[in-house]
Amino acid sequence: MKRLNHFFAECTKIVDRQLDALIPSEQTEPSNLHGAIRWSVFAGGKRLRPALLFAVGQTFGAAEKDLGRAAAAIEMIHAYSLIHDDLPAMDDDDLRRGRQTCHVKFGEATAILAGDALQTLAFQTIAEDENLTAKIRVRVVSEIARAAGTPSGMVAGQQLDLEAEGVKISIEDLERIHQNKTGAMISVSAKTGAIIAAADETEIKLISAYAANLGLLFQITDDLLDATQTTEVLGKTAGKDARAEKATYVSLYGLIEARRLAENTHAAVRGELKKIKRETFLLGEIADFILRRKK
Amino acid sequence: MKRLNHFFAECTKIVDRQLDALIPSEQTEPSNLHGAIRWSVFAGGKRLRPALLFAVGQTFGAAEKDLGRAAAAIEMIHAYSLIHDDLPAMDDDDLRRGRQTCHVKFGEATAILAGDALQTLAFQTIAEDENLTAKIRVRVVSEIARAAGTPSGMVAGQQLDLEAEGVKISIEDLERIHQNKTGAMISVSAKTGAIIAAADETEIKLISAYAANLGLLFQITDDLLDATQTTEVLGKTAGKDARAEKATYVSLYGLIEARRLAENTHAAVRGELKKIKRETFLLGEIADFILRRKK
Repeated sequence: MKRLNHFFAECTKIVDRQLDALIPSEQTEPSNLHGAIRWSVFAGGKRLRPALLFAVGQTFGAAEKDLGRAAAAIEMIHAYSLIHDDLPAMDDDDLRRGRQTCHVKFGEATAILAGDALQTLAFQTIAEDENLTAKIRVRVVSEIARAAGTPSGMVAGQQLDLEAEGVKISIEDLERIHQNKTGAMISVSAKTGAIIAAADETEIKLISAYAANLGLLFQITDDLLDATQTTEVLGKTAGKDARAEKATYVSLYGLIEARRLAENTHAAVRGELKKIKRETFLLGEIADFILRRKK
Repeated sequence: MKRLNHFFAECTKIVDRQLDALIPSEQTEPSNLHGAIRWSVFAGGKRLRPALLFAVGQTFGAAEKDLGRAAAAIEMIHAYSLIHDDLPAMDDDDLRRGRQTCHVKFGEATAILAGDALQTLAFQTIAEDENLTAKIRVRVVSEIARAAGTPSGMVAGQQLDLEAEGVKISIEDLERIHQNKTGAMISVSAKTGAIIAAADETEIKLISAYAANLGLLFQITDDLLDATQTTEVLGKTAGKDARAEKATYVSLYGLIEARRLAENTHAAVRGELKKIKRETFLLGEIADFILRRKK
């Protein structure tokens, strides 16, 4: 795990440097807007999606310099989604990563605009990435847009999630929600790394299967943590799912079965990796990390 | 003007067909989300930006089939911005194009997500436009993102506009707000037509200057209409600017001077056109139309 921690720290450093260079400074007008964007982007997130992109990219032989902007773009999409998810009309949350959410700190209007601008900047960042060929850039914009949008991406998942509050849903419904809401962006993070590395289409498919299961594992452990950890440890409001009467892996399976499902999904992720004829040690460690994470 | 009306009707037909093909149907889950998107996109808008893109594209010799998707993408960005602008935390408006705004009809959460998804789909639409080379696609994504985002695009302008409510601002401030808020997207609509037509960089610059003035003209006439027309004619709440204590060309100059400024700006637009050595009849008519529009 020590090697993995080092890897995560390195990825965070690279992606934070990119984000800092790409996002207008607070001295640039409108400074409130840029302050709000920076507040949310530099909140000490795990940078899991960028790390996954870097790990896959390096697994398939991409140069580090070719991965940084795409990683930053994916983190921008992630940050925009958190800002909008936290809004009063959505999950109505005051706390994120141990501090005030964007709309509590900057007001609702600015938070909506900060999310909007981050999404725009994400696509601009890829389109203007001169390390990549135009062909790879349009492929990456297309893949990330499909994962972030509707009918089978993040926004669709968020809509399904909102509609499922207080409603009895099936395991299949729950899986569809999460596949869209978090799975698609996690999966495309891995896929983007492989695309930039010019992996062949068979390898891209294998890595997408690995990442889809990884996304599922992430969501199950997320539900477990929400049900078992404190707000202090998580840095975000704990026990929220139960109060909102949200269907989760814990509410549908119970704690013990949900834990077992996590173990089985982890085994499936490990199984997918065996099919990839590359050095996948790091990708395996990321799966281990997600299984064992405490926040 | 008859020829121009025919041209607008043709553009609307083409862009609406594109939008209908690109936006998931209401039968596709999550159907509420797609219903909300379609409610806002197919609300009988003027399709001014697509028409401008078509007019410029044809002026510089682009084929009609190469312009349709980019035009649809720009209209998606426009529609997303209107949905978010109308939200309670923003301009809080109930009426748009003579009917309920998206959040009144579908709820705030769905309206936020509908706007988000439309922005995503806009960039996806350009990235996947197989009529254009990858090089043109990334250029168009980049230009539209810059016009839609911050620090010198639509979202920045919206933020500045919100911050200016109830505050005394200068003419220069007002111009900066509008240049960002509406001018940038109008300007990039024209520019995109020229880029797709593979116009040379000098021509792209000339057309951008034409469109920047056209955007200014549009804003001045918008302020005049808000101050002088009824809600029934406009299909959106009239007299809103004065009630929100917004600085406008009318509040800063008065009706008579604002009208004169519109005439002068129109003359400037006409002047820019003379520098372009192409058949610019249609582009001139669009300027005339914006000067004389009644809603």
